[in-house]
Amino acid sequence: MSQKNPTAALIVIGNEILSGRTIDKNINYIAKGLIETGVDFKEVKIIPDIRQTIIDTVKEYSQNFNYVFTTGGIGPTHDDITTEAVAATFGLELVRHEESYDALNKYYNGELNEGRLKMVMLPKGAEAIPNPISTAPGFNINNIYTMAGIPNVMQAMFDSVKHTLKGGKIVQSKELRIYASESKIAQPLNDLQNDFANVEIGSYPFVLDNKIGTSLVLRSSDGEVLNECLKKLEVITKEFERA
Amino acid sequence: MSQKNPTAALIVIGNEILSGRTIDKNINYIAKGLIETGVDFKEVKIIPDIRQTIIDTVKEYSQNFNYVFTTGGIGPTHDDITTEAVAATFGLELVRHEESYDALNKYYNGELNEGRLKMVMLPKGAEAIPNPISTAPGFNINNIYTMAGIPNVMQAMFDSVKHTLKGGKIVQSKELRIYASESKIAQPLNDLQNDFANVEIGSYPFVLDNKIGTSLVLRSSDGEVLNECLKKLEVITKEFERA
Repeated sequence: MSQKNPTAALIVIGNEILSGRTIDKNINYIAKGLIETGVDFKEVKIIPDIRQTIIDTVKEYSQNFNYVFTTGGIGPTHDDITTEAVAATFGLELVRHEESYDALNKYYNGELNEGRLKMVMLPKGAEAIPNPISTAPGFNINNIYTMAGIPNVMQAMFDSVKHTLKGGKIVQSKELRIYASESKIAQPLNDLQNDFANVEIGSYPFVLDNKIGTSLVLRSSDGEVLNECLKKLEVITKEFERA
Repeated sequence: MSQKNPTAALIVIGNEILSGRTIDKNINYIAKGLIETGVDFKEVKIIPDIRQTIIDTVKEYSQNFNYVFTTGGIGPTHDDITTEAVAATFGLELVRHEESYDALNKYYNGELNEGRLKMVMLPKGAEAIPNPISTAPGFNINNIYTMAGIPNVMQAMFDSVKHTLKGGKIVQSKELRIYASESKIAQPLNDLQNDFANVEIGSYPFVLDNKIGTSLVLRSSDGEVLNECLKKLEVITKEFERA
């Protein structure tokens, strides 16, 4: 449908997600942001804080996708190993990012200890991604964008990066919700999909007010075709109550 | 820390997660359930509804992990392709699962159309995973456990599978929350980690009542060592208010 759009993937780095302690809140924010830019979000991997696993995943994703985002592991403590691992992936040393150092020094009133200093050591040649919440930056090196795991910091970082991404055609979507189980309309929906190769048709069941329903989602980067497909869908589903 | 425990990974299959339409609610449930069984949750991949991508991922994960769970894509519509793709991964044909067929026939009062029938076609030799909510089953073939994407159905399926998993040592955890930024205790925490190789020490910042805090999480399958480490941590953090 949008084969020529640039692609993106996300690496969520954090034992706390895999242990069940923390519920990820970043994937959905990034997914919605990428939709707006015309970059196709292709894959997410959630991995533990293991250095070699981070290196292997960053290397693989860097080769397979145009843009790679990482979240988590850039804080001051011993379990924050993302920055060092990303640097090692590309054989880069860590150097002090002077502008970030000055900002952090100011933020902590000159009280910089080893942990705090660690947060302004970036891979050589990396560009800092500003952190308006707590100063310690993310960074961009090659096609990797390394961001914090804390949602409000991550969001600020992602927002400052988003407008720099070169996107392709923007995928638009239309949704139609009916009170009917999806198995009632599976066949005509399948026929519709066959008629509209350039529209991705998704069918998602839901329960609302104790009634079973189906949300039908049409997605395409061609607005005209999308509207045409929607009209056909309205005909197919005209016997069902709208939800 | 628990290298000998069996491992598990999860494949979340669904365009709706990657498009931002839907927020995943299954990862955390599975993570918490696996902790209770002594199975180490190693990785999650979120992929789109693309047949070859599903096949490649199922094949890779089947080889790399003891238990592989999948969520999503087992409904009645054209975009539900998980079952067929899992069967294709192992070169298996789809055959009608008679027990599930009988149950579904009863559930739909004999009104079985093509879409509904599709949901009881399972890979040859697969064992059905019961669905007490809406009857259409998940299934287990080799080390793959294919489940629904709808959270309440997924949870029922996972719960019925969970007790059949052969787990190892159960990882226990202790949490200590202080009102102090993590950069204030990064160094003693690092020393503590060096002293306790069998404890995984995680440090996670939070903000509560406009105060910055840090949640310190200790995890180990050795309860005695865990308590010893916690005592040391209490000493290290004694100057800070508990959150």
